[in-house]
Amino acid sequence: MVSPPPANGHAPTHGPHGSLRVAVGQPSLPVGDLSGNRQRITETMQWAEEVEADLLVLPELAITGYPPEDLLLTPGFVDANLAVLQDLAGVAGSCVTVVGFVDAVAEHAVSDSAPRYLANAVGILYGGQVRGRVHKVLLPNYGVFDERRYFASGAETGESGWTWAMHGTDVGVLVCEDLWRPDVPDGFAVDGAQALASANASPFHRGKAAQREAVVTDTARRCGMPVAYANLVGGQDEIVFDGGSIIAGPSGEVLARAPQFEEANVVIDVPLVHPTSQRPRRFVCRPTPVAKQPAPPAPTPGTEMEDLEEVYQALVRGVADFVHGQGGESVVLGLSGGIDSSLVATLLTDALGPDRVWGVMLQGPATREVDIADAAEQAQRLGIAYDHVSIEELCRLETGAISDLLGTTSDRLGASVEGVAPRLRSSMLLAVGENRDAMLIATSNKTELAVGYGHLYGDLAGSYAPLADVPKTLVFALARWRNSAKGPQLGSEADTEPIPERIITKEPSARRTPDRPDRELPASYAVIDAVLERLVELAQSPDEVADAGFDPDVVQRVADLVEANEGTRQQAPPGPKVTALAFGRDRRQPLTSAWRPRITPPGAERPSTDLVPDPESVLEG
Amino acid sequence: MVSPPPANGHAPTHGPHGSLRVAVGQPSLPVGDLSGNRQRITETMQWAEEVEADLLVLPELAITGYPPEDLLLTPGFVDANLAVLQDLAGVAGSCVTVVGFVDAVAEHAVSDSAPRYLANAVGILYGGQVRGRVHKVLLPNYGVFDERRYFASGAETGESGWTWAMHGTDVGVLVCEDLWRPDVPDGFAVDGAQALASANASPFHRGKAAQREAVVTDTARRCGMPVAYANLVGGQDEIVFDGGSIIAGPSGEVLARAPQFEEANVVIDVPLVHPTSQRPRRFVCRPTPVAKQPAPPAPTPGTEMEDLEEVYQALVRGVADFVHGQGGESVVLGLSGGIDSSLVATLLTDALGPDRVWGVMLQGPATREVDIADAAEQAQRLGIAYDHVSIEELCRLETGAISDLLGTTSDRLGASVEGVAPRLRSSMLLAVGENRDAMLIATSNKTELAVGYGHLYGDLAGSYAPLADVPKTLVFALARWRNSAKGPQLGSEADTEPIPERIITKEPSARRTPDRPDRELPASYAVIDAVLERLVELAQSPDEVADAGFDPDVVQRVADLVEANEGTRQQAPPGPKVTALAFGRDRRQPLTSAWRPRITPPGAERPSTDLVPDPESVLEG
Repeated sequence: MVSPPPANGHAPTHGPHGSLRVAVGQPSLPVGDLSGNRQRITETMQWAEEVEADLLVLPELAITGYPPEDLLLTPGFVDANLAVLQDLAGVAGSCVTVVGFVDAVAEHAVSDSAPRYLANAVGILYGGQVRGRVHKVLLPNYGVFDERRYFASGAETGESGWTWAMHGTDVGVLVCEDLWRPDVPDGFAVDGAQALASANASPFHRGKAAQREAVVTDTARRCGMPVAYANLVGGQDEIVFDGGSIIAGPSGEVLARAPQFEEANVVIDVPLVHPTSQRPRRFVCRPTPVAKQPAPPAPTPGTEMEDLEEVYQALVRGVADFVHGQGGESVVLGLSGGIDSSLVATLLTDALGPDRVWGVMLQGPATREVDIADAAEQAQRLGIAYDHVSIEELCRLETGAISDLLGTTSDRLGASVEGVAPRLRSSMLLAVGENRDAMLIATSNKTELAVGYGHLYGDLAGSYAPLADVPKTLVFALARWRNSAKGPQLGSEADTEPIPERIITKEPSARRTPDRPDRELPASYAVIDAVLERLVELAQSPDEVADAGFDPDVVQRVADLVEANEGTRQQAPPGPKVTALAFGRDRRQPLTSAWRPRITPPGAERPSTDLVPDPESVLEG
Repeated sequence: MVSPPPANGHAPTHGPHGSLRVAVGQPSLPVGDLSGNRQRITETMQWAEEVEADLLVLPELAITGYPPEDLLLTPGFVDANLAVLQDLAGVAGSCVTVVGFVDAVAEHAVSDSAPRYLANAVGILYGGQVRGRVHKVLLPNYGVFDERRYFASGAETGESGWTWAMHGTDVGVLVCEDLWRPDVPDGFAVDGAQALASANASPFHRGKAAQREAVVTDTARRCGMPVAYANLVGGQDEIVFDGGSIIAGPSGEVLARAPQFEEANVVIDVPLVHPTSQRPRRFVCRPTPVAKQPAPPAPTPGTEMEDLEEVYQALVRGVADFVHGQGGESVVLGLSGGIDSSLVATLLTDALGPDRVWGVMLQGPATREVDIADAAEQAQRLGIAYDHVSIEELCRLETGAISDLLGTTSDRLGASVEGVAPRLRSSMLLAVGENRDAMLIATSNKTELAVGYGHLYGDLAGSYAPLADVPKTLVFALARWRNSAKGPQLGSEADTEPIPERIITKEPSARRTPDRPDRELPASYAVIDAVLERLVELAQSPDEVADAGFDPDVVQRVADLVEANEGTRQQAPPGPKVTALAFGRDRRQPLTSAWRPRITPPGAERPSTDLVPDPESVLEG
């Protein structure tokens, strides 16, 4: 369509075949909050009407939040989401709204014996009605995704692949994963679409925003079409959606980019370089354009965040949404004077404000004076509540009771009583937290969870573990990054250097018992984290890691520790995924498994990696 | 084929078109134990050769164990399983062996953007070679299953639907789920198969054995073909395979049934009622029958276990395989004098023997004299190690320290210190367990986990929770059943009435604080369990449950408690699934969710259950 001449200095972007005014919205849409989501989507729709957008694209499963998991199998849930869709249709005026919901479909036999009755869908709303729907074709079932558990595919229901006429423009509508394999968007190009509208729920990990932007801009360039890409924002248990919705132009240029990790709307006139195909279409609204006010000034596309800022903000958003999502407001944590609890306290202060954070130093037998001083200094810098009590006498008494039970003396208990102090701490923190309605936050990091350097029910305890996917070396990097960042931009009252330098640089306290050298860490954190990244995130074999120059004994020891601590991880609190492969729903390991990948000894023959049964032995009759 | 005349009194079963000597094996095949599984499969193949079986059917994924989960994505794992397949082929003589393995396939684009490189396969071994393979067509992705995460389907790879010539008999070969939708077996019937060989990994729940047998016998009757159905046996984290392999005759009669919950082999001559089709086949072995000794006496098919025996044996097998699978031998548990810990102690004694079980009474402020006496009596009846120490002083001290931290007096702490005693207990049990290499076993039951009647890290703590899927009323029923069963048949040294009657009948101790009536259980266990069964296992809405005659307030309260305790359950230990819907991998709920199904108030309009967008509003252009 052709917009009217600009009424002021802001010339809309025109292509040879006019333009379309496209809006994308990324409101906060928590899982299951159907009435809240209805309200926030309604407000976004009203905004889109005000700016005279032709098209508003909202995220995937916007009505239910993502991922709803087995709520989808809960009676009433899908019906309630359909009722919200109808309510939203009533709000829809002359802007075409594409909004994610769960559609109820006829029974579909898919690839197993259980029929599916649902589709991951977007509704197309216009003029008070649901004018159409599109079902997602590609249903991700890898990594953190399990969509085949619930949905029939648009390829099975037949409700996909249609190009819609909107205000005289041919628009292809698709859902998330459908953009990640070229066949679906290319099909729209072949069908003569002039633009693509993509509803998404694409979770964050390091580097994901750049990867996602490449997919969007590559598609736009390849198809010569603008692409409006709406993404969710907010933390949902183990995943964080970072928003960062994009509108790309037909040459693959980024025309607009919404901020990451916060609610936002963007609107822009996008140029159309292909003519309307004149083919018959499913149409949803008036076939011809109308005169309208010029679009608001096209915002300069913001730049993507730097790596460390992105991770830090993911952690802040993740923990804030978890605490609030559980109906909580305040948190308590153990402050040990170490880097992990200091970084977590800083994250919590940035997420919730200093008045909602309570740090407690529970001084045990191994606590050093320097740690007590640093914990107090940490709390003081953040302006959070702080208490300090000793549990030394309690530890002594419990250790004595354990000795009695074992019929031995305390000095022969060795490593078996290492957990006494951390578990007394978690017990006390849970009690005081319950008394003051404060949620216990765990301070364990990914490296500890990987190699078992932490006590289940003790220092690993808590409702949420913000660092669960943050390796130790990244903990240090984030602390340094936060100290170099400006406090106010993070919404914190904290000093611009919130973490005392000594906490970052001092020697860590030895937490293991001297008589159990087998339980010491097998190398420095730098080496362990590098080995872990290869073993876990890059899924390399121990041989491959050793070939990259790491000590084979260290590699084997780390691999063994990762395997041995699966049971501990499966009982540890959830935390936000920030790496390419997190423990938890992203990496599903049998707890009981006899499989132990071993380094091939020097001189021994490597196991073949190309062993398949001999096809010649299969004889056709 | 026609077997030679019988050489002794055991006449093989002949049909109008002869018979096939069919063996099924259900050896123990733990996940990841590739070398152990190779050894056990080899022994089963050698047995099948000795009894001159024509065909040996082994379970699905027999080489890797089931479910291997993300081990399938671990470098080297699939190659190692393929090497085992080749080794087994070397063992194969004149008996055709059908054995489950993971096949490596060319890249397949399936229903998302991630290609699959694997298939859930069976190998067909004969005469020292892998003579063929079949890929599973239907890949279950519901309940406890996630097969789409890993596998391409046989419908995609093309390696399925073939009928194989074995000793002159046409045999259709299929994998597990393929039997649960009629189209796959019926396709073999149309293709002229005379018998079906089915490799399975079908987990236990109450009533599953009967359901499974109905599927096998219905298929046999419908297709007029014998069906040889091999199932796995053994516990694997949250699921237990109950074995119970079946050979059904062409009229749907059960000809042989292997025992449940234990390793076994069965062999029988099955009658063939259809002639060979003379169609060209993929053949795998000599086309004509040879003379052989008669089959061993056909065993009388055992009867299926009764409901309670079946559940009890599932729990025993589940915990035994978990402890051994973790490399453990001994266990420790808290004995409270209550029914849960008594039943768990009895299960453990039956699973591991009395010398491997250690019960500890940790007497707290709420412990009654009667409970101390009963705990001691329980241990004495089982013949297990027993200790008793008081933690009252420790509880007092810790409570005092919590008071100090809160700046309040102990008598004002209320419910917030309820967790002190249970968490001191778990801390001490973990310490003494670590000292003596004994794994801590949790005693929590499904009802407690559902409604939050238990303390995370306290009484819920442990590596495994045998009763995690056992509702409280079933705990009582199992205790009574065990008391009525014969001890020796369970392999226990225990008295034939191992659980003191008073433990079953006495008033339970009140574990909640009197000043928090909101935290009392909302009804009797009988009512709560009936409501829970409807809400959880039958997935009824609160309205439906209330309509069935339950107090709406109780229903709403139970539903709210189930929702509120999701976070606790997600950090609780795994336990074996025994009901139709267990918490855990069988029921995946968002931890943070704002969805709260509410009872419809009297007089208010019920939400519609048939709300779909108006199809008329979609207009074709």
